[in-house]
Amino acid sequence: MPEEDIILDDPETREEGAYSLDPRTVQAILEAVEAQDADRLKELVEPFHAADIADLLEQVNHEEREAFVRLYGTEFDGEILSELEEGIRAEVIAALSPEVLSEAVRELESDDVVDLLEDLEQPTQDAILEILEASDRLAVEQALSHPEYSAGRLMQREVVAAPEHWSVGQVIDFMRAHDDLPEQFYHVILVDPRMKPVAQVTLGKIMSSRRTTKLADLVEPDFRTFRVDEEEGDVAYAFNQYHLISAPVVDDDGRLVGVITIDDAMIVLNEENEEDILRLAGVGDESLNDRTFDIARQRFPWLFVNLITAILASLVIAQFEATIAAVVALAVLMPIVASMGGNAGTQSLTVAVRALATRDLTGANALRVIRREIVAGFLNGCVFAVLMGVVGILWFGTPMLGVVIGAAMVINLVIAGLAGILVPLTLDKAGVDPALASGAFVTTVTDVVGFFAFLGLAAVLLL
Amino acid sequence: MPEEDIILDDPETREEGAYSLDPRTVQAILEAVEAQDADRLKELVEPFHAADIADLLEQVNHEEREAFVRLYGTEFDGEILSELEEGIRAEVIAALSPEVLSEAVRELESDDVVDLLEDLEQPTQDAILEILEASDRLAVEQALSHPEYSAGRLMQREVVAAPEHWSVGQVIDFMRAHDDLPEQFYHVILVDPRMKPVAQVTLGKIMSSRRTTKLADLVEPDFRTFRVDEEEGDVAYAFNQYHLISAPVVDDDGRLVGVITIDDAMIVLNEENEEDILRLAGVGDESLNDRTFDIARQRFPWLFVNLITAILASLVIAQFEATIAAVVALAVLMPIVASMGGNAGTQSLTVAVRALATRDLTGANALRVIRREIVAGFLNGCVFAVLMGVVGILWFGTPMLGVVIGAAMVINLVIAGLAGILVPLTLDKAGVDPALASGAFVTTVTDVVGFFAFLGLAAVLLL
Repeated sequence: MPEEDIILDDPETREEGAYSLDPRTVQAILEAVEAQDADRLKELVEPFHAADIADLLEQVNHEEREAFVRLYGTEFDGEILSELEEGIRAEVIAALSPEVLSEAVRELESDDVVDLLEDLEQPTQDAILEILEASDRLAVEQALSHPEYSAGRLMQREVVAAPEHWSVGQVIDFMRAHDDLPEQFYHVILVDPRMKPVAQVTLGKIMSSRRTTKLADLVEPDFRTFRVDEEEGDVAYAFNQYHLISAPVVDDDGRLVGVITIDDAMIVLNEENEEDILRLAGVGDESLNDRTFDIARQRFPWLFVNLITAILASLVIAQFEATIAAVVALAVLMPIVASMGGNAGTQSLTVAVRALATRDLTGANALRVIRREIVAGFLNGCVFAVLMGVVGILWFGTPMLGVVIGAAMVINLVIAGLAGILVPLTLDKAGVDPALASGAFVTTVTDVVGFFAFLGLAAVLLL
Repeated sequence: MPEEDIILDDPETREEGAYSLDPRTVQAILEAVEAQDADRLKELVEPFHAADIADLLEQVNHEEREAFVRLYGTEFDGEILSELEEGIRAEVIAALSPEVLSEAVRELESDDVVDLLEDLEQPTQDAILEILEASDRLAVEQALSHPEYSAGRLMQREVVAAPEHWSVGQVIDFMRAHDDLPEQFYHVILVDPRMKPVAQVTLGKIMSSRRTTKLADLVEPDFRTFRVDEEEGDVAYAFNQYHLISAPVVDDDGRLVGVITIDDAMIVLNEENEEDILRLAGVGDESLNDRTFDIARQRFPWLFVNLITAILASLVIAQFEATIAAVVALAVLMPIVASMGGNAGTQSLTVAVRALATRDLTGANALRVIRREIVAGFLNGCVFAVLMGVVGILWFGTPMLGVVIGAAMVINLVIAGLAGILVPLTLDKAGVDPALASGAFVTTVTDVVGFFAFLGLAAVLLL
């Protein structure tokens, strides 16, 4: 009985829920590749999920990757391709023999093929489309006709729908008669005669009800549909906010064209978070596998913006050259005020950017949050004013220097709090992603204000 | 036919998939609250999901919140409590009348009650436990006995399991006979005679198979279980990595004790990302609804660490007071070198921290990534060296000043790249969350190196 094998597989691998590749296995696999030992390679790789094999391929270097792909040969699974990230994927596809590639692509579901294709260059895309059977090719081309990052790209086209007047028995019989049902589905969608979705029923409810029960009596209280052109980020937000499991996608006429499931939404939500984190740090769509030159080029723009910012701040300092020449201690202490402002500003802006992303920061509470940032900046400003005032006096023995740095600290932390909330709010209103541009603006403000307040006060009070 | 009403509800609300509260509705609701118009309030709030009502309560101020809760009265749903964030939840619970509270809590599933309770103070916890019926109370107390952030807290205890030898017909009859099945479930878990889970079958597969088919013939190829004490972050990682929908949770003896579903994993994954973003910016577990004083207090530690960092950098500058006194232009230009290093370091460390979180950065590729960071830092360093060299010469007319700032720039950007990868790697090895502490270390390094390289070179080459 072959099924016994599946059920009673090795308990060790089964128990390791959060399992991922360990360095020793990676080492052993690389040794097998080096030794050109195909049987050993297959044996080592066999227990792993396609996602883990993809991770492995991402972690090794270019030559190891090619050697692995060649040696692994016909064992290469389409799912591994799906799991690979863009750059590496193109490389692996180029390394696969045409036979292995077409085998791998043919075993994928059509929405996975779409995922696979959308990031590839046109010639590779065309070559893979050629491989597909006519019906699959049409489905894939249809999906690719929807704009990138839309619900239409995210959805799967295979749906399980039933007329709204059907009973449990009817839908079960229908499902038993069809062997081309989607791999995974969680709801039966009820549609009206014009194929407009009107409600959905969970499979659990259907299975626990008698055959005569009407599906209409089992519908879920919450029901949402998405338009095919809706942005995937908004879809993911709704899945998270309303705890959706799957939801129908409709075309402009409200007709059912597909279904989006929570696992796809989870991937999008994760990507959006990732993007926010990287953007906040001034890093673009960077991956660990990009070439060194690409990394440098992608980081350049933000560093260039920062250079402009820093030069602006230097121009402020330049106005006070005479003051600094008279009291060199000012040059020693001035970076402290600017740095504290920069950090306080980053704190505020990060909270604001996240609150905007999660839609917690709205017109209804913006004023309150702004007020709060100012007061919090003032409170911390006062504490650090006292601390730095004392340091200033002890270090340089000039009480007035302590007063100057203390006052500048209060001013800069209040301004930092204010800029940290106003800049993201303004960018958001202007339709610019606040995660992308807030940092540069806020640091400019805190640098300029920090140096100006400190050196300006010093010029007035110390000279 | 009441079900018709549910199916044919207002198409406008149905179509709006990514719908959330708009400011005008918030305004209208607040006006109804102010006017003490309970009927109008109910009418306005009725179309919204509990998650939206919770958002509303989070966005309005303390007085408005209390007035809303009082006026909304017995309409108040337990689910709204579940959706509220900690601070606000405690406040709302305090504002609810005992009758409304017990009604709201009783209608929740036991795992939602656990969610609700775990963040509340002991006395409020006890009061709510009192409200529950004995069996529910036991279930909740059992869940609370698992450590916080463990699979045991995350799982729901209600599972649908079947002996591994059952057929499709048997499990359908079993489900029809039981009316206490979980609200949402996606798999039937097959267990051996000692209640150890051995495989699972999707509901879709069961429904589309004949009654005589053995469940063992329908099992999913991938099957993972989690131990009850596993960390929820690891569980969420595995759900994302292996595209799991639901997975059984087992106790120390491998016996089935619960099930975790993807929607719970999605929430955890989102929280972990959120935490990383805030930690990278030096903000703790801050929410938009914390009191101003708490906000200031939570941000203080990171600012304090930054103060120490900044003072360290100032100590470096102090070593070069004589140099600065001789060439005041140095004071004008020196923040540029430090600032560029800080930004480049933040870029590298953010990429590294994320790669560690997603387990893309491992022993297998660490060396390659380190080398890449150094080279990328060197490349950008050279470009900015030329740019700043030119600016330095044009601005101050001293070619050697251009050479000094250019050389310092190259040095600091290489060090920034190196620190940006080595610091997170080291912290991770030491078991410290790299998102939390990397920033402070990296900025210290880039500030100190930036000032030292620039002023040191100036002292040697310019004086």
